[in-house]
Amino acid sequence: MAAPCSSTCEPAAEGSIRERVPPLLSDLYHFTMAYAYWRTGRHHEHAVFELYFRENPFRGSFAIFAGLGDCLLFLRNFRFTDQDVDFLRSALPAATEPAFFKFLRSLDCSGVTLRSAPEGSVVFAREPLMEVAGPLAVVQLLETSLLCLVNYASLVCSNAARFRLASGPRRKLLEMGLRRAQGPDGGLSASRYSYIGGFDVSSNVQAGLLFGIPVTGTMAHSFVTSFSSLDQVSLQTLVDVKRAPDQVDFVSLTKGWLGRVCELLGAEPRKIHEGELAAFLSYAITYPHHFLPVIDSYSVARSGLVNFCAVALALCELGYRPLGVRLDSGDLCKQSLDVRRALRLCRERFSIPAFDSLTIIATNNISEQAMVELNNKENEVDVLGVGTHLVTCSKQPSLGCVYKLVEVGGRPRMKFSEDPEKSTIPGRKAIYRLMDADGHPFLDLLCVAVEPPPEAGHPLRCHPLAAAAAPLSVTPLKVICLHRDMFARGQVMQPSCSAAETKATVQSSIQSLHPRHKQLQGPDAYVVALSEKLHTLVTDLRRDSTKKNNLILGN
Amino acid sequence: MAAPCSSTCEPAAEGSIRERVPPLLSDLYHFTMAYAYWRTGRHHEHAVFELYFRENPFRGSFAIFAGLGDCLLFLRNFRFTDQDVDFLRSALPAATEPAFFKFLRSLDCSGVTLRSAPEGSVVFAREPLMEVAGPLAVVQLLETSLLCLVNYASLVCSNAARFRLASGPRRKLLEMGLRRAQGPDGGLSASRYSYIGGFDVSSNVQAGLLFGIPVTGTMAHSFVTSFSSLDQVSLQTLVDVKRAPDQVDFVSLTKGWLGRVCELLGAEPRKIHEGELAAFLSYAITYPHHFLPVIDSYSVARSGLVNFCAVALALCELGYRPLGVRLDSGDLCKQSLDVRRALRLCRERFSIPAFDSLTIIATNNISEQAMVELNNKENEVDVLGVGTHLVTCSKQPSLGCVYKLVEVGGRPRMKFSEDPEKSTIPGRKAIYRLMDADGHPFLDLLCVAVEPPPEAGHPLRCHPLAAAAAPLSVTPLKVICLHRDMFARGQVMQPSCSAAETKATVQSSIQSLHPRHKQLQGPDAYVVALSEKLHTLVTDLRRDSTKKNNLILGN
Repeated sequence: MAAPCSSTCEPAAEGSIRERVPPLLSDLYHFTMAYAYWRTGRHHEHAVFELYFRENPFRGSFAIFAGLGDCLLFLRNFRFTDQDVDFLRSALPAATEPAFFKFLRSLDCSGVTLRSAPEGSVVFAREPLMEVAGPLAVVQLLETSLLCLVNYASLVCSNAARFRLASGPRRKLLEMGLRRAQGPDGGLSASRYSYIGGFDVSSNVQAGLLFGIPVTGTMAHSFVTSFSSLDQVSLQTLVDVKRAPDQVDFVSLTKGWLGRVCELLGAEPRKIHEGELAAFLSYAITYPHHFLPVIDSYSVARSGLVNFCAVALALCELGYRPLGVRLDSGDLCKQSLDVRRALRLCRERFSIPAFDSLTIIATNNISEQAMVELNNKENEVDVLGVGTHLVTCSKQPSLGCVYKLVEVGGRPRMKFSEDPEKSTIPGRKAIYRLMDADGHPFLDLLCVAVEPPPEAGHPLRCHPLAAAAAPLSVTPLKVICLHRDMFARGQVMQPSCSAAETKATVQSSIQSLHPRHKQLQGPDAYVVALSEKLHTLVTDLRRDSTKKNNLILGN
Repeated sequence: MAAPCSSTCEPAAEGSIRERVPPLLSDLYHFTMAYAYWRTGRHHEHAVFELYFRENPFRGSFAIFAGLGDCLLFLRNFRFTDQDVDFLRSALPAATEPAFFKFLRSLDCSGVTLRSAPEGSVVFAREPLMEVAGPLAVVQLLETSLLCLVNYASLVCSNAARFRLASGPRRKLLEMGLRRAQGPDGGLSASRYSYIGGFDVSSNVQAGLLFGIPVTGTMAHSFVTSFSSLDQVSLQTLVDVKRAPDQVDFVSLTKGWLGRVCELLGAEPRKIHEGELAAFLSYAITYPHHFLPVIDSYSVARSGLVNFCAVALALCELGYRPLGVRLDSGDLCKQSLDVRRALRLCRERFSIPAFDSLTIIATNNISEQAMVELNNKENEVDVLGVGTHLVTCSKQPSLGCVYKLVEVGGRPRMKFSEDPEKSTIPGRKAIYRLMDADGHPFLDLLCVAVEPPPEAGHPLRCHPLAAAAAPLSVTPLKVICLHRDMFARGQVMQPSCSAAETKATVQSSIQSLHPRHKQLQGPDAYVVALSEKLHTLVTDLRRDSTKKNNLILGN
């Protein structure tokens, strides 16, 4: 039941970006700061900000960088309307000069450049995911919107990637978290970035429309409970595929099968729920090629499974192929084994090969931990549907990305904090990913932007960021420059990627990781290090910060 | 720095609802089920769904119902476009009849009624927050969108209400979570419903524009670190308010104060950060009436506090009133005490009364637990800014609302699940809140819709929902009918409420609760109970479900 939308669907996304991310979707202090820069004539100074997170999420060793596409659209469309400016006039102190609002009305991102890792890349704590450079006032005004677009996108994408790692490559993963997300757009972001992170399909129709994500779904419990008796089965016939256009009394046919199934499975006819049978019949007659009911509305063993088998066998007799069942409560492993055993019994007794390939979908508040446990227990689940724990990222509901000033007017800037991990790494940088002989990345090196890149085959000394780590000497077999020019002169510099294309980037990026970095529990830390030159810059700035300021009182 | 927008701002909200919550923002299975209802002629049957949550969030005893306003706008605007229908044609099985898409194109909510508690009410687990009734196919199609609008709104509003309870009524609470929310709309919802739940002000400018929420903010660390020397202070003078229009050299004036402050506080001039002083001077000259810097970019005690005092004293000398300081790292309690002590010293030594009323804002990853601890320790924090833990609801990131069928074609429906707590309570209901002699609600009673309401002063027997609870006999002193007609015949039935009005409902609703239900840790459970009549209905349906289905194989 996949949606066939194979285009990138970018026009729809662009059309709505101004509606979704207006430039006032920002913290007020950016405007007060922008005014202070403007008032003191610093607004045009060239500034460089970096966006990064401080700790790898979910106690893992990596994250996935996502949200870039929306950031680029946001930059391209960044402009204040008259209504925006009127509101700012009311929100800022009355003393704010009118000319500042004219200045705001004239702003755009034509002077802004953005360099970043490709969307979908594996990234690590404390390395810049994005570098945003341009006039100080403008790049300051972009902060919150860019953080808002990257933070959750990267978090849920990383979460989805972990679910994918936990489930292994073969099991199909269904995202179904819309109703539990942070409102409509939270739900759309969840569907979009879960798919990119490794899910196969979503229940979210709008995500199918906007992003070309395959969508799926059959029935909820309400469909089953809306039926109470066979009298409600108004359509009673189906075409026999092999003898079309003959219509067969499908209800009678199913009743016949029901007797045989009860006998085979040892089920009591009086425990079978008539309303459930009526619901299954109505659905099967409506969609005979797509029969996949939820079978736990009353009791899987006593009613749902028996009704399913009867209807599915009747469908097979007429030449249709039922798809499978969904389990939504109880012990999913045990139930999936019981269901598979019953399906095999039917297959053998009634010689119905289609019963070999029926899908068992399980959906019941599945967490990453539950998925790991599922893998450690015998089960017959083919497809897992995940909602709440995926979209809320319950294990760690924030990535905590920050956006920090590293250079202004060509001079590196650094923040020294009361909390050491809140200190920043100064200066404009180049980031190189160093690969080992097996093609696995083993270290990301942060360099001063203008120093020569590391060379493959040449040893280099560097300073890991981890607290109290000793300097390292390493020799990369290959060196990759992580960041690319993404936005300049008001234009997006790289072709936009569809969700499916970014999904492929995620998978190849994760595949390149060494298994010791991919472990969900207790992975080896991936090393992010400073080059000698950058380390010297940090040391110098630290020293200067405690030295030179005795001049303040000098005059 | 509050925004003066006092109108309800509803037009903007309505204008965007179709963009924010298109009717395809839904799970695909609603469409497959709607098709099955349509195909089998059941789509016009009258159905009743209830929206509720199963457990009170955050281990508390209550939640706040929020999101209603958006639900009503969604219903009023619910209509499929040609583009929607074209996409559905591609997403549904090819066998779906073309006439069904014509049917979808014609749908609206003119046949739907919605009854609910007023937005902002205290509500409890397992009681219906909303009852949605109308043609089966239509009310089924509304499920996911309504859940999406209520789930997070109610969760974050309840979370904000807990932060308010934890902080006490006097301390000012600032919401600043936009950058950590689930994308742009998650951030807007967070700001809107945090304010409604009890926060005073937000940093989110767009929330100010759309919902009339007061917005605030002054400066980030980047502003401070963007300065490195006093040479960057391009504007150097300020008007002396008492001797206007005379301009005074504000930099020199501040330097004079800096010497005195260093002496008074025992600070070393050489440890003072010149760039920080330049930033404070530039901001103060720009906004002399709104001086509230962040003082921990380098070291609070050695630099930030000293610089603040010097600039603030200079402002006071010229007749301005500085506002206060922000702390964003380290031990907030200890630092606030140190800061207050220094401010008092300045006030006494220099006889500056304005220093008595300076505000100390603290913002550093504050959780509910951190707020409770803050209240138990001596501190001088006047305003708390909360971001990540508030908007992500890290303690429990989902409310888990569900939408369940309780009646169809006038017959009560019930789901029996493998998990007992997933069973539903059948039938259309009236919900009464029973009050005790002190005006506190003590029990919410779910009744069959058509039974006579409980009467004040008359004892009644009821059946608490808690597992294994014995029947109770209670006598209410007052009885309130919780639900009201909110939507009928395509129209919203109650005047729309501004965020400020709903905020007032929340506060009065929480105030009415008995203190034992308001405790954040280990509160007494609030009793939700079934009337005798409803209890009998449940018992009858349970019995019937195991009895009458021996008829299926009868013909």
